[in-house]
Amino acid sequence: MKKFTSVKDIDSLPDWVETAKKLKANPYAFKHLGENITLGLLFFNPSLRTRLSTQKAAINLGMNVMVMNLNSDGWSIELEDGTVMDQGTQEHIKEAAGVISQYCDIIGVRTFPRLKNRDEDYSEKILNKFIQNALVPVVSLESATLHPLQSLADVLTIEEQKKTPKPKVVLTWAPHPRALPQAVPNSFAEWMKVADVNLVIANPEGFDLAPEFTEGVTVLHKQDEALKDADFVYAKNWSSFEDYGKIGEGFNDWQITTDKMALTNQGKFMHCLPVRRNVIVADEVLDSDASLVLEQANNRTYAAQVVLYKMLQNG
Amino acid sequence: MKKFTSVKDIDSLPDWVETAKKLKANPYAFKHLGENITLGLLFFNPSLRTRLSTQKAAINLGMNVMVMNLNSDGWSIELEDGTVMDQGTQEHIKEAAGVISQYCDIIGVRTFPRLKNRDEDYSEKILNKFIQNALVPVVSLESATLHPLQSLADVLTIEEQKKTPKPKVVLTWAPHPRALPQAVPNSFAEWMKVADVNLVIANPEGFDLAPEFTEGVTVLHKQDEALKDADFVYAKNWSSFEDYGKIGEGFNDWQITTDKMALTNQGKFMHCLPVRRNVIVADEVLDSDASLVLEQANNRTYAAQVVLYKMLQNG
Amino acid sequence: MKKFTSVKDIDSLPDWVETAKKLKANPYAFKHLGENITLGLLFFNPSLRTRLSTQKAAINLGMNVMVMNLNSDGWSIELEDGTVMDQGTQEHIKEAAGVISQYCDIIGVRTFPRLKNRDEDYSEKILNKFIQNALVPVVSLESATLHPLQSLADVLTIEEQKKTPKPKVVLTWAPHPRALPQAVPNSFAEWMKVADVNLVIANPEGFDLAPEFTEGVTVLHKQDEALKDADFVYAKNWSSFEDYGKIGEGFNDWQITTDKMALTNQGKFMHCLPVRRNVIVADEVLDSDASLVLEQANNRTYAAQVVLYKMLQNG
Repeated sequence: MKKFTSVKDIDSLPDWVETAKKLKANPYAFKHLGENITLGLLFFNPSLRTRLSTQKAAINLGMNVMVMNLNSDGWSIELEDGTVMDQGTQEHIKEAAGVISQYCDIIGVRTFPRLKNRDEDYSEKILNKFIQNALVPVVSLESATLHPLQSLADVLTIEEQKKTPKPKVVLTWAPHPRALPQAVPNSFAEWMKVADVNLVIANPEGFDLAPEFTEGVTVLHKQDEALKDADFVYAKNWSSFEDYGKIGEGFNDWQITTDKMALTNQGKFMHCLPVRRNVIVADEVLDSDASLVLEQANNRTYAAQVVLYKMLQNG
Repeated sequence: MKKFTSVKDIDSLPDWVETAKKLKANPYAFKHLGENITLGLLFFNPSLRTRLSTQKAAINLGMNVMVMNLNSDGWSIELEDGTVMDQGTQEHIKEAAGVISQYCDIIGVRTFPRLKNRDEDYSEKILNKFIQNALVPVVSLESATLHPLQSLADVLTIEEQKKTPKPKVVLTWAPHPRALPQAVPNSFAEWMKVADVNLVIANPEGFDLAPEFTEGVTVLHKQDEALKDADFVYAKNWSSFEDYGKIGEGFNDWQITTDKMALTNQGKFMHCLPVRRNVIVADEVLDSDASLVLEQANNRTYAAQVVLYKMLQNG
Repeated sequence: MKKFTSVKDIDSLPDWVETAKKLKANPYAFKHLGENITLGLLFFNPSLRTRLSTQKAAINLGMNVMVMNLNSDGWSIELEDGTVMDQGTQEHIKEAAGVISQYCDIIGVRTFPRLKNRDEDYSEKILNKFIQNALVPVVSLESATLHPLQSLADVLTIEEQKKTPKPKVVLTWAPHPRALPQAVPNSFAEWMKVADVNLVIANPEGFDLAPEFTEGVTVLHKQDEALKDADFVYAKNWSSFEDYGKIGEGFNDWQITTDKMALTNQGKFMHCLPVRRNVIVADEVLDSDASLVLEQANNRTYAAQVVLYKMLQNG
């Protein structure tokens, strides 16, 4: 496979979940596959979980890993074609991607949206330019609009924890003081629609996600109604898609509390982390047995490992 | 062992010194022990020696190493329980420690004191919060009040270099233009009291270390008197414990010079580095055969290696 | 060999080129040589290609690699002897080099010129101080006045691509909005004079390189005349050596365009990267089959690998 950027890039989700479980049960079984294969991890933006879990996944498969913080370790990157580069940018993404392809057999790229221009962000300019100009497979380590490694880890976590064949999964907006990307909720919706779950999305009016991700999904503007009988509550803040990048203020009652969790079917709490305590979710919920956040974090390793494994197998 | 933060965490110093010597003589003999074991090194503060020596120690034992500069590569960390995290901090130390434990089998943490609030620093809040919330063993890479890897390396260096069974070791304050932590001298005192040496501490009035570390030790306020017949002179600056964080000004005569060394019993000069030349110590001393600073730096590798070796064995 | 800083440090260029080709054909054949050998890469300045290619080369040879960004990860370094270090600098280069030598078997150092004081830059103070105080071999990852790993990669690229025994190679100045070092052109000239090529240098008046590098080389101030019948066109900007550090303004017609390339003998285009598109070179040239920039970047790995291989062999 040439790229992993979305659920659309994988052939069979059930097969991938099975492979992830197999790798989790025996992480070092395929260490020979990665011998003399180098993974480059490029960060245009900060990262803790993604950095460590992807590095761990690669090590588990016997790969070498090289990490680069672009913009701090390297050069300022130009994205536009045809630019006369006599201003701030020092290297064009064509050369950056081409050059890194000389040293790495697979490249992971993290790039956040700027949340200023919706069309620009949703065109996934940086990631797509990188893929176009790379000579090797590219893995999204979270892009402007999607976070597929997180979603794959979330699918795996739900598969491991579910008590009914087709659980009710509620993705709920929650408060946050800053403008956050829509990447995690977009991606979660995209993967849940393929997974065998009953997905409901709850968010305040004005915070509906892009229609391409919510088509066919029940979207409610009342959180309590959505949470009823939920088996899994996936909380996440996002800024507005409609009024692009706008922060949702005055919705403190969307915080996930013990009272909210009491509406569910002894539901489990999920969040991709980092999470702002007592803003997104109350301490009581996050510190309870209902919280799956560390299981999700752990599964990030096996999500990354199945992607790398599939890429190594292909060749 | 669950943690390495102080001499109190080890069972037998003589045994540890012997193990360190064994590892130094044959650094790669236990490379199988670390196979598929990952060490995470987390830096809240800059590091050169600790970073490289600990990484080297882990590699010698066949471990994988992942390095994270928190606050620059990652997210801003919240330490307080119960905080409504609607301000600058993005991730609570509970999640940070829990998550990193998913990817690392042993975690090293470096964190400096802020030197503003003595009780806060001496409670070792960051390190202890980290240990409380980590699910794997934690190694201090220098904390607010102690630097045990440095002290273990210093014990090893003195053991290797001593010419009498119970040498006289003088820990002396020296001048410095900035407010420095008390971690190195506290820790040195703590380890020397367990080692088989005659420890004397010299510092200006107002710069006595915390009583818990100096109990039973001769503390002199006249450097010349202390240096008499010393076998080892360990120089280090620290800011005031009494008038917490105050810089010691007007004590330029506490610099270690050739004249000062002439008072000793052909004493060896020690410093943990980095050292400000001609402020802490004169060029003539640092560049002389009496200086053990590179030996100390080299022993940092084997200090770290014995800690990791003990943790791997227990594991 | 104790250092690799210039073509003067190697015994036989033809032998090195042959060795590089052999390593490129079979990169992992000498993986046993680097077992338990650690390469430290120290960056005083940013790096993308050098960082990744040298790391890759070391991995190919089975070495361990530790990367340090000095000044950000570490401490501020003092270069002057005899300084009373009571100001900003925290560690003397004597200790830094000595200490890093305790943990690394070979050290790579990148350091840029400040372009303020020509004598200081051309004395290669940082690199030479580092070499003087290091206890292990040192590899220049680009210094104030030379970039030997780039030049060795360039020699290899020309050897692979040349169609005549003694090709005409034109090193031409090209426009750039900022003051750049003379390291790449100095170094290219130095290596080309040893290689079996016909070297011509073209630059505007006032931008002649230091005489020590251009002695015996045809230097022209008319680009068109120089480009005639060129087999290879190596474009690069540099600031003035004469009026030290001055930017060359008003020379936009020195940009390499399709028209300029039409003057050559179906010449190949070369640049060390990063390159400012449509300033140094037009898109049409860089995106054409005549461009060798990715081949050059790829050869950086084998340039580094031959240096490390020679150092490992010497023992």
